[in-house]
Amino acid sequence: MSEAPRAETFVFMDLEATGLPDVDPEIAEISLFAVHRSSLENPELDEVGAPVLPRVLDKLTLCMSPARPFTAKASEITGLSSEGLAQCRKAGFDGAVVRTLQAFLSRQEGPLCLVAHNGFDYDFPLLCTELQRLGAHLPPDTVCLDTLPALRGLDRAHSHGTRAQGRKGYSLGSLFRRYFQAEPSAAHSAEGDVHTLLMVFLHRAAELLAWADEQARSWAHIEPMYAPPEVPSPEA
Amino acid sequence: MSEAPRAETFVFMDLEATGLPDVDPEIAEISLFAVHRSSLENPELDEVGAPVLPRVLDKLTLCMSPARPFTAKASEITGLSSEGLAQCRKAGFDGAVVRTLQAFLSRQEGPLCLVAHNGFDYDFPLLCTELQRLGAHLPPDTVCLDTLPALRGLDRAHSHGTRAQGRKGYSLGSLFRRYFQAEPSAAHSAEGDVHTLLMVFLHRAAELLAWADEQARSWAHIEPMYAPPEVPSPEA
Repeated sequence: MSEAPRAETFVFMDLEATGLPDVDPEIAEISLFAVHRSSLENPELDEVGAPVLPRVLDKLTLCMSPARPFTAKASEITGLSSEGLAQCRKAGFDGAVVRTLQAFLSRQEGPLCLVAHNGFDYDFPLLCTELQRLGAHLPPDTVCLDTLPALRGLDRAHSHGTRAQGRKGYSLGSLFRRYFQAEPSAAHSAEGDVHTLLMVFLHRAAELLAWADEQARSWAHIEPMYAPPEVPSPEA
Repeated sequence: MSEAPRAETFVFMDLEATGLPDVDPEIAEISLFAVHRSSLENPELDEVGAPVLPRVLDKLTLCMSPARPFTAKASEITGLSSEGLAQCRKAGFDGAVVRTLQAFLSRQEGPLCLVAHNGFDYDFPLLCTELQRLGAHLPPDTVCLDTLPALRGLDRAHSHGTRAQGRKGYSLGSLFRRYFQAEPSAAHSAEGDVHTLLMVFLHRAAELLAWADEQARSWAHIEPMYAPPEVPSPEA
């Protein structure tokens, strides 16, 4: 069922943006943690046997000023605002973001697997839109994994016939609380959420790696969330 | 006394490397937090009045495989090793590191001020060596600030004639413990140390900004720690 070769580097990512898909949002913050497969196959454990962040980890977090306004809700939950970003003189999602992203990814052994929670419905299509607007590309053998359907699918496979699974929450916060009996830190900063995502992944790393090898989708098949407004239409 | 115009972005940095200056070390990890001046002039405070990390913060952390071995001590304190980095298939400090670094810095409003603790004696000359080996440059108006002599100098100015100042420790850990009555986290990971450095800076931000405006040195005056071996000599 896999569309692509097995990934050697997993790039955990999260986007903060100006709103939900219905407002054609723009990215205001992106965070990526690149982790080599070998670190996920053999996670380091602390003294009580809980996974800890891999020591060798490349990280990139960038804030940017969207051209359009934040919804009140998005600004409230992310702590970001057009005014705050402008005060820090941030440019938008532009060529320099793409150059930073591409140079950062070029240092990671490929193929790459982008990993995001709810990625198929939010992060991947939105990133696709922003890249398409700039005519930018990811490496052609890139694949992607959404931990939301993956973890639901894994739990379903383990518990077919029992009722308990269906009641569980699968938000990133719910998963983290269930796996670690602790509150996730810095929710709704892009980096905080990537940290939480990576910890959740590490808790079930062997299963999720196997899932990724079987079911990761090709990045080439991701459709943009919406047609980027700045791209001239073919009819023009 | 200032050599350069006032910086608009402060780029807090730390390097982990294969050893101390006497072994001609190579960089194994670099971490940069870019913070706009406006966030340092008006730091956010928590409920007890302690500074918190700025919400708008760009971050870059990269690990790389040095060509030469780590000293046992460097490997022990950083948690990095040639084997661990090779297992994660990290390349060395190469053109892709430079491209990532330059693209990352190009997003920050200039002039930039690099900030490191003990930077004049370690981080700045070592970064200078690695950049020189690749023929790479930072923006020409870049300046740099070493928080070690800056904080010593500020304390001396406050307490001339009293004896207490001279006895204080000025390691990053000592400063953090003194200012925050807590242990710094993740010491000797590049990112952990940059986090600690930024918190220490925020604790005395107004004084350090004024110091930087007066005393930051031009990056162009930083001498490399040693002549990079790969550069052909002019006589060759």
